[in-house]
Amino acid sequence: MHMVKADVKMDIYSHNDHIAGHVREYLGKHGIYAVNVMGAPGAGKTTSLERLMKHLPGKVYVIEGDIESDLDTERLRRQNVPAAQINTFGACHLDAPLVHNAVHAMAFPEPGILFIENVGNLVCPAELTIGENSKLLIVSVTDGSDKPYKYPLAFEKADVVLLNKVDLLPYLDFDEEFFMKGLRHLNKVAPVFKVSGKTGEGYAEAAQWLTRAAASAAGQ
Amino acid sequence: MHMVKADVKMDIYSHNDHIAGHVREYLGKHGIYAVNVMGAPGAGKTTSLERLMKHLPGKVYVIEGDIESDLDTERLRRQNVPAAQINTFGACHLDAPLVHNAVHAMAFPEPGILFIENVGNLVCPAELTIGENSKLLIVSVTDGSDKPYKYPLAFEKADVVLLNKVDLLPYLDFDEEFFMKGLRHLNKVAPVFKVSGKTGEGYAEAAQWLTRAAASAAGQ
Repeated sequence: MHMVKADVKMDIYSHNDHIAGHVREYLGKHGIYAVNVMGAPGAGKTTSLERLMKHLPGKVYVIEGDIESDLDTERLRRQNVPAAQINTFGACHLDAPLVHNAVHAMAFPEPGILFIENVGNLVCPAELTIGENSKLLIVSVTDGSDKPYKYPLAFEKADVVLLNKVDLLPYLDFDEEFFMKGLRHLNKVAPVFKVSGKTGEGYAEAAQWLTRAAASAAGQ
Repeated sequence: MHMVKADVKMDIYSHNDHIAGHVREYLGKHGIYAVNVMGAPGAGKTTSLERLMKHLPGKVYVIEGDIESDLDTERLRRQNVPAAQINTFGACHLDAPLVHNAVHAMAFPEPGILFIENVGNLVCPAELTIGENSKLLIVSVTDGSDKPYKYPLAFEKADVVLLNKVDLLPYLDFDEEFFMKGLRHLNKVAPVFKVSGKTGEGYAEAAQWLTRAAASAAGQ
């Protein structure tokens, strides 16, 4: 909400970051590595989590952030994944206080990875930290190769990128070189894994990256 | 930005709506019917405008709203479409003051339709009027059939819906009945046109609807 005066916005951000620090510390004590999962509506966030889980050796927890509905949480619970729902009822992204409350209502009986699936939105979620250790950005090839140019912040802040729905590439005019040029202009280091939620390809490699990142954060 | 106190938010909205009224009045005097084009990143907004134009009998003007970049504006200008660029530099949607300034910098030598392409975002643009006569929502079948359930406001507020990329339906598990059930729960009246930016199918019918809506607004 850019119309809010800059000083109000600064106050909101510093309050948020303060609470995000608490969330990160609390999760760290429980041996939980937190991943902020960002992407546009329909990028394949929940499907990607389902695919990643199958390749992750440890325990997985999920917080689902949605404006309304708990479709994805119910879907995960049917698979016996410990999943909590946050509904923002209008707000376009999660913030640290919302995640703080959800995290304190959850049980973390063993160490593992907590995926926090943000509201489907390629703009606002990138502005705020919510206590995560890393940001996982999921983009779909069906959305076109110009996305890094138009929505730079999410690409700039990503620690790892999943380029999803590659099974549809034969039917699209996706320009991978243009996409990668735009991404690398903003972000020199984030690895990009080409995946398909439909076929499952690529998720084993992405899960390996996450496993290493979690181990490294735990000082192992 | 839901963390802003409710009264601040109310003030922002009423100021915005006041200016939106001015924009609508100014455009009306010039015989311009304004369409607020909303949709997630990659829904095919600009491509759909290019397709619609070919079937619209009168003059067409475009304002492109993007966080950064003027890729789409340059693309339209190469086709001799009078197009103006608004860059929000971070903000997740257009607002009436931004549109007000853009509209006053444009020339409207003859009556017609002004498309105002909002920032790619299925959440925030639906919250604000920007001086439009109607809201055109573009959604892609590649994003899945659950979108009305997860992002209700945009579907509730839409006057007309384009369901895009139907050429990809054979390769997807899109559940049209579920989509329509979710949409009709929120919005009983908005017509839905199935279109393909790639093949051009469906746009003639959608353009007919727009032509009639514009004529009706002009009291013809």
